[in-house]
Amino acid sequence: MKKEIGITTEKDEFSDWYVQILQKAELIEYTKVSGCYILRPRAYSIWEKVQKYFDDKIKKDGVKNAYFPLLIPKENLIKEKEHVQGFSPEVAWVTKAGETELAEELAIRPTSETIFYPAFSKWIRSWRDLPLRINQWANMLRWEFKNPIPFIRSREFLWQEGHSAFSSKEEADKEARKIWNFYEQVYNDMYAIPLIKGKKTEKEKFAGADYTLTLEAFTPSGKSAQAATSHSLGQNFSKPFEIKFKDKQGKEQFVWQNSWGLSTRSIGIMIMMHSDDKGLVMPPRIADIQTVIIPIFNNEKEKKPVLTEARKIKEHLREVRVEIDDREYTPGFKFNDWEMKGIPLRIELGPRDIKKKQIVLVRRDNGEKQVIKIKEISKIPKILEDIQNSLYKKALKFLKDSTITAKKFDDVIKAIKNKKLVNAEWCGSQECEDWIKAKTEGAKIICITEEKAKGKCVYCNKKSKEVVYIARSY
Amino acid sequence: MKKEIGITTEKDEFSDWYVQILQKAELIEYTKVSGCYILRPRAYSIWEKVQKYFDDKIKKDGVKNAYFPLLIPKENLIKEKEHVQGFSPEVAWVTKAGETELAEELAIRPTSETIFYPAFSKWIRSWRDLPLRINQWANMLRWEFKNPIPFIRSREFLWQEGHSAFSSKEEADKEARKIWNFYEQVYNDMYAIPLIKGKKTEKEKFAGADYTLTLEAFTPSGKSAQAATSHSLGQNFSKPFEIKFKDKQGKEQFVWQNSWGLSTRSIGIMIMMHSDDKGLVMPPRIADIQTVIIPIFNNEKEKKPVLTEARKIKEHLREVRVEIDDREYTPGFKFNDWEMKGIPLRIELGPRDIKKKQIVLVRRDNGEKQVIKIKEISKIPKILEDIQNSLYKKALKFLKDSTITAKKFDDVIKAIKNKKLVNAEWCGSQECEDWIKAKTEGAKIICITEEKAKGKCVYCNKKSKEVVYIARSY
Repeated sequence: MKKEIGITTEKDEFSDWYVQILQKAELIEYTKVSGCYILRPRAYSIWEKVQKYFDDKIKKDGVKNAYFPLLIPKENLIKEKEHVQGFSPEVAWVTKAGETELAEELAIRPTSETIFYPAFSKWIRSWRDLPLRINQWANMLRWEFKNPIPFIRSREFLWQEGHSAFSSKEEADKEARKIWNFYEQVYNDMYAIPLIKGKKTEKEKFAGADYTLTLEAFTPSGKSAQAATSHSLGQNFSKPFEIKFKDKQGKEQFVWQNSWGLSTRSIGIMIMMHSDDKGLVMPPRIADIQTVIIPIFNNEKEKKPVLTEARKIKEHLREVRVEIDDREYTPGFKFNDWEMKGIPLRIELGPRDIKKKQIVLVRRDNGEKQVIKIKEISKIPKILEDIQNSLYKKALKFLKDSTITAKKFDDVIKAIKNKKLVNAEWCGSQECEDWIKAKTEGAKIICITEEKAKGKCVYCNKKSKEVVYIARSY
Repeated sequence: MKKEIGITTEKDEFSDWYVQILQKAELIEYTKVSGCYILRPRAYSIWEKVQKYFDDKIKKDGVKNAYFPLLIPKENLIKEKEHVQGFSPEVAWVTKAGETELAEELAIRPTSETIFYPAFSKWIRSWRDLPLRINQWANMLRWEFKNPIPFIRSREFLWQEGHSAFSSKEEADKEARKIWNFYEQVYNDMYAIPLIKGKKTEKEKFAGADYTLTLEAFTPSGKSAQAATSHSLGQNFSKPFEIKFKDKQGKEQFVWQNSWGLSTRSIGIMIMMHSDDKGLVMPPRIADIQTVIIPIFNNEKEKKPVLTEARKIKEHLREVRVEIDDREYTPGFKFNDWEMKGIPLRIELGPRDIKKKQIVLVRRDNGEKQVIKIKEISKIPKILEDIQNSLYKKALKFLKDSTITAKKFDDVIKAIKNKKLVNAEWCGSQECEDWIKAKTEGAKIICITEEKAKGKCVYCNKKSKEVVYIARSY
């Protein structure tokens, strides 16, 4: 039985455990509007670090940031047929302002293709204007009626959405893959999470896309979460929105387009992936505080030199995000508190340590305790990197251990029941895809890998076309 | 008669001139929704620079960033009486999602006091939790029915809003002034604009505030624009939202609060302030491109060495944001184009320059031409700083030249007609405030200065209480 103050459930009780972490680690606050959450400073600070990393990457690659309006006129939204069918069930509508009914209802953007592309149509005239690659960081609203889950399925979320236009299909295809790799790097490098890469099936692709490249994170809940997507839109939008350019021969052509997005859902995936029964575990690169110093003393006389030494250590660790916890609580309380809050590395420092010119280091990821000399504190950045790498390796091991290759459909059913991720072959028919979903009670083909199929469809036993992953998903 | 391609009007024709600059310098794109504009990359890049500057400043001062929801339940919005009266006429309402009518209408935030403070009420328990100082960068929506003006009065805008809670009025007052000064620094240091500082009158203060500290920019249109505001909310929100803390004596008290905001309106003020008949003028610190290199050549043979040298120069100017314009247009076209787009410094480089190991520099702010040796290009950052400072001085001179001290009300009327800013004394009565507005056809007291009043009210001739500024305003 755990103390009320900490996490009172275990990771096995997944959804209760997840929600307790969000609240007790001060990441999320609920509001009266279901599915709309407050990202508290500790959560927002993760997002800022991911933003900086990704923003630098795409700017270096030539993408420019802009800001497009929140509200989309209905006539825009309905221009691309599949797109509107996919999104309109979950669009929130503004119908009045003050006491005045609006002449035309306005959609709050669920995604911004239909507000970006009328502008693209004005800005693009000739091949000289291409490629056009614009990104925005913004809030989106999708009024899902399913049970909301903070970060993972919230009605409002933050994301970046990139929109580009090219003069050829080849260039657009190349960009789709490039961004796909960028997203993988965000998860690998920042969140310490390995992902599964693949293409969405026709049924599951983005509404309006030619194809969707996806990254999937298989989480310890036994469910997979779509981690980021890079869509090739072909000319599906450029035709209704009339985005045309004169090529070098003076011939008018429609542009080839992409859109791509990474959202605050990634934070939820990170929390699910690394955290444990004690609470949040954060990889150092995205942690608000990387190292917390806990001064230990029994009386006022001991307090002063300990705090002085703690401040000196903080001063020396300039490149590390360090906090000193000088609150009036016991060290034991503080250990638990910062473990629950996921701080990667704890430094304990008492009078005896000072005498021995040493500090005690405790790693959050594996609980390892290590005593080092104070003059060796320049080792700490390396230890933090080691924690980052260990978390990645642990997550990779989890992914491998969770993956079952199934040849028979019974094995698929069994694996899904055991909360596993299934690798299997598929004939490519939507009929089999639907049957897989029905017979597994909701698991689906989360993506088609780039591996070459060699055998038979796990469902119908006919010749297979694709190697796919099957899992329950958020 | 100017060419169609450039700015076809003069700064005297203010609103037409302003709108042409926004479009031709590629800052703004219109959408079908009146008052909602696209901030194109060149405009958004200004905002990013201001964000970085201000975000660093407040973080260093201990403020933390977070993100609060877009949608505010009606019951929250109506809790503070003056606040709801001030904002509800311009609130946009979400009333349905998909095809479903919502049980309760949701307001799109016009400002976020009423969504921040229920959370503050949960988070604050004791004096140990104070001060609480949280900021967010977000989009807001105010459905004004007045004629919209891009940046200056748009329905959707971007801003930061800081919200804080303190245990005493003194601390809250101190923060109000601190932020007020931070905002002044943003305008002085980044936008190269001097401002007028003062307090809003009771009539003009923020709906729900005890008092509002304002910064006002007097623009060349003859109108003043509120540039940023720092509000002392007293306990006006903490009481209805029940934000209480136990003080050190264990006594329960309501917190003292502030809110403060700086928006993308600042970009519009900057454009109005510095630009001229040729187009946009940008201070170097907020310019996307600080220096553009125009290679000059008559044939392919000349082209190669010129471009090679241009690239070398760019390489050497690492700390400067430099672009080489190698488009297939004439140098003359490019000169006009980049002047219209407001790039602070142009470098001209032709075969003769290379022979003489020199470049030609042309300043956008004053048109000054200067020839320097290529080996002297390390002077360029200093020249950019000089441009920054010159723009500030020019704006300061404009402000001084525009200010008329009026002793008689006839002089007020005359000055306002002449598009001036009036410094005058006021008795403090709302009656006189209203008369001033009525008799000047719309000019109003934009702020109360901190100067000591010594004379008589410019309107009623009774003993004055305040020294104020009067102007037409946006």
